Amino acid sequence: MDFELHPTLAADSHLIIENEHLMLRLIDDSRFPWVIIVPKIPGISELHALPDDVYGETVTLAKRLGTLMKNAFRADRINTAAIGNMVPQLHVHVVARLNSDPAWPKPIWGFGEMVRMDDAEIVRRTNLVLQELGPI
Amino acid sequence: MDFELHPTLAADSHLIIENEHLMLRLIDDSRFPWVIIVPKIPGISELHALPDDVYGETVTLAKRLGTLMKNAFRADRINTAAIGNMVPQLHVHVVARLNSDPAWPKPIWGFGEMVRMDDAEIVRRTNLVLQELGPI
Repeated sequence: MDFELHPTLAADSHLIIENEHLMLRLIDDSRFPWVIIVPKIPGISELHALPDDVYGETVTLAKRLGTLMKNAFRADRINTAAIGNMVPQLHVHVVARLNSDPAWPKPIWGFGEMVRMDDAEIVRRTNLVLQELGPI
Repeated sequence: MDFELHPTLAADSHLIIENEHLMLRLIDDSRFPWVIIVPKIPGISELHALPDDVYGETVTLAKRLGTLMKNAFRADRINTAAIGNMVPQLHVHVVARLNSDPAWPKPIWGFGEMVRMDDAEIVRRTNLVLQELGPI
């Protein structure tokens, strides 16, 4: 069985970078600097169900992203989460929160409607992340 | 500086087990089977700021808890998250979600008011977790 990105994730996010096991994607929501890590394992839905090696890669990337997004987006707080109550395919959120953002201090998931970015903003955020991240 | 548990976390949760670096606590809310991992590092607020060894211990415990809580509470889904927008001291949530729970499919954080457990339920949940978990 080949890995196929869930259509909702595909529609709501843009690829930043990928490697053999992981895809890093930018959520198309101008309200919050927000990325997801998607392990490319067919049929996987829960974080704890990841094989240990891919789990290790996932949480290592989450830690790197937390550090860099805090700096790159001057965040007051990083929110990291695997929820997936709406989209079953496993994806790990890393979100840069500002205490001036529209949802603060509430969680962003399920908060209002997403506000899509223009192409310039997609490029800006993608480059901000890529520039600091380097290879994954 | 000694580690001191944040008063809100102390008031809203009960110790299940601890080791040198981590505290595992049961959130006192009958609506959701819900635990938190609290790394016992003074002044730490963000997951990505954990030293690598304690980060490793934290995410390993989160993975074990995900597996066991899915089974022990017959959960439809595990939600794992570090948010901390309200309580700055780092704590990692592991929550067993049922599609019959009052918040489903919304996130539980900030959802309604907590409904405290009686002592029998605290003991029951603590034992369910401890029984499967063994030493940490």
